[in-house]
Amino acid sequence: LRGRLNTHQRHIAVALQNIGLFLSKEGSLLDDQDEISRAVKSALKRCDVLLVCGGLGPTFDDLTREGVSNALGRDLVYHKEIFDKIKTAFRRHRMEIPEENKRQAFVISGATVLSNPFGSAPGQLIPLPRQGRQAQLIALMPGPFAEMAPMLKNAVLPLLRRIYSQIHAQNRSFHLCGIFESEADERLLPLIKSAPKNLNFTILASSGQVDFYITATGRSSAESRRLLSSASRKVRQAVGKYIFSEGEKPLEDAIGRKLVEKKMTLAVAESCTAGLVCARITNISGSSRYFFGGAVSYANELKTNFAGVDPVIIERHGAVSPECARAMAEGIRKRTGASLGISITGIAGPTGGTPQKPVGLIYIGLSQKKRRTICLKRLLSGNRQTIRERAASSALTLLWSHLRR
Amino acid sequence: LRGRLNTHQRHIAVALQNIGLFLSKEGSLLDDQDEISRAVKSALKRCDVLLVCGGLGPTFDDLTREGVSNALGRDLVYHKEIFDKIKTAFRRHRMEIPEENKRQAFVISGATVLSNPFGSAPGQLIPLPRQGRQAQLIALMPGPFAEMAPMLKNAVLPLLRRIYSQIHAQNRSFHLCGIFESEADERLLPLIKSAPKNLNFTILASSGQVDFYITATGRSSAESRRLLSSASRKVRQAVGKYIFSEGEKPLEDAIGRKLVEKKMTLAVAESCTAGLVCARITNISGSSRYFFGGAVSYANELKTNFAGVDPVIIERHGAVSPECARAMAEGIRKRTGASLGISITGIAGPTGGTPQKPVGLIYIGLSQKKRRTICLKRLLSGNRQTIRERAASSALTLLWSHLRR
Repeated sequence: LRGRLNTHQRHIAVALQNIGLFLSKEGSLLDDQDEISRAVKSALKRCDVLLVCGGLGPTFDDLTREGVSNALGRDLVYHKEIFDKIKTAFRRHRMEIPEENKRQAFVISGATVLSNPFGSAPGQLIPLPRQGRQAQLIALMPGPFAEMAPMLKNAVLPLLRRIYSQIHAQNRSFHLCGIFESEADERLLPLIKSAPKNLNFTILASSGQVDFYITATGRSSAESRRLLSSASRKVRQAVGKYIFSEGEKPLEDAIGRKLVEKKMTLAVAESCTAGLVCARITNISGSSRYFFGGAVSYANELKTNFAGVDPVIIERHGAVSPECARAMAEGIRKRTGASLGISITGIAGPTGGTPQKPVGLIYIGLSQKKRRTICLKRLLSGNRQTIRERAASSALTLLWSHLRR
Repeated sequence: LRGRLNTHQRHIAVALQNIGLFLSKEGSLLDDQDEISRAVKSALKRCDVLLVCGGLGPTFDDLTREGVSNALGRDLVYHKEIFDKIKTAFRRHRMEIPEENKRQAFVISGATVLSNPFGSAPGQLIPLPRQGRQAQLIALMPGPFAEMAPMLKNAVLPLLRRIYSQIHAQNRSFHLCGIFESEADERLLPLIKSAPKNLNFTILASSGQVDFYITATGRSSAESRRLLSSASRKVRQAVGKYIFSEGEKPLEDAIGRKLVEKKMTLAVAESCTAGLVCARITNISGSSRYFFGGAVSYANELKTNFAGVDPVIIERHGAVSPECARAMAEGIRKRTGASLGISITGIAGPTGGTPQKPVGLIYIGLSQKKRRTICLKRLLSGNRQTIRERAASSALTLLWSHLRR
């Protein structure tokens, strides 16, 4: 809550999803015993498993043990062997052990101790019996990521997998571009509305891209697979031509695979995006097979010197014009010998806009040998940074649409 | 909860801290109307302000409006003017508007609508009167970061500042480069440990940069200012030579100001970072005054054609070598006529490493007329993406250190 990035949540969500379980709620609290106690009580009302990270250390603000003990109405029991172990570790580092560390040797009555090879705070597993049902489970894990992650992997997940062995989850993700979220939603809605309960859907949008996730949970892996592949077929029918990848691969990966498949190479000339397109293309390991490089032709002289734009074009139409975008795309392709040239020129703002050429106006050029050069106009909204990111996404989307054919 | 990193929490925590408010609880939920409703009810029991992000979009799983409406027992009211505005935006993009978008025009009864210049979902501000006390406040903000952040900054924070005007918080942030977090921590620890209760500190590290935040909360602005300036003096004593900026400006801004001040211009030749340095430099509006552009010389031919590297150098020393980095920096400076040339070449991995030239090996060149060309070697760790980002940060750090003199 202090402005640190919560990487635990993502890690745990993905780990659970991989075994067919779902994080249904996540929360961060202050180091306050009553808050912890309240949160534990409230969570136990509706969950089967509660994972608690942090607050198991020796210092005054480590209050998870006390908070959980309160919430459950169970005592904390001193375990001498835990303190002995901590003492040994301190001695090995030739350090004096502070009296405070004794707090780490208190365990909730009825809990199983989980050893922590990467730190001094052990974890705790607390089963809470329920009538006629699988017991609820609380796992207390240390806060530092490097201690939590191994404990999750080596102790908690294997146990959950055993307990929930009847869950057979299968996941697939679809990544779309060239379509707005609301349109994708409209096309996918019939599938979502008619789907059986054991299919779960999520749709997410981020700059120029729509992500659609399906999870199928059948009574057997075969059933899950069947559910998933039937739903996947419907997704492909509904939005197939916008899907650039299935799985976790980004758009630039799909572009790379198309370029390799078509034995084509690429060069880029960027003005307002100034390297963003190149940076995304080269996010892919092995992109040197198809990506030559390009020019960041921010100054007009570099549009001429690096991207081969005739200065007359800039003088007559301006640097932000379809003519200049076309010339940049053609120029960078010819100068580098690549089979495709992509260009972007535009006004990222916040200054430099005019009524005729407002902030957000972007031209994207695409040149291929023996083909007519394409030029796309976009009027993007946002601040300087988002306009530039959206412009780069638009260029990649155009490129992918071109390669897909 | 889908395995996405929650960057909102960190952003909001820091933004609140800057105005002397503290995030006391954070939670993420599933897209479930009842869950949202329950969470809102539970949060309102103990908070003064509730910030809700996401679920304001047009799609089936955008259920924040309904969940909050339920929790408060207030109706959702259709606002035609909101839908008209969305329709206009769609028309500008020459798109058909899906019927689903109408959902975004529903507003909780009694709420103030917050316009969203960067997306279609407007925000909502809902005051909840309380007897004898300042009303509670709920703010609904869109989920995408690029829409949430400006709404927080431009609408929500100014309001909170007005409401909580009796809190006299003063903040300062210090941005450091060229120092490790642990070293910064060690140097700052005496200050932190001896500080009075009404001074709060946060230290954060991100690729190549350390950020240190101080908040002072006195009984008057004068007291807060006094506390803050005394602490700031101590910060400058402890780590002064690593501070590139105080305030919210990024490193590239500090570099830009130095370049303008010294009437210098810059060009960049990038291999493994492929545009990341150029993209960061041009994040600053007005960077065209000092930034000419550069070459993304991914292929060796472009190192020669665009950055003027003698092919013999590449043949003899390899593209990842101090010699090549120097030649790229000198070449790009001369080709563009800039007064400074910066270059990066290296191995971002995960493939392509050798025992002599492992993944993470980076050379950074810096050339200035009539000066000896500088070359910096770095062995960076991380995956492909983090190595590239750290390489770009290292180049900017070197550039800043050079300009600072």
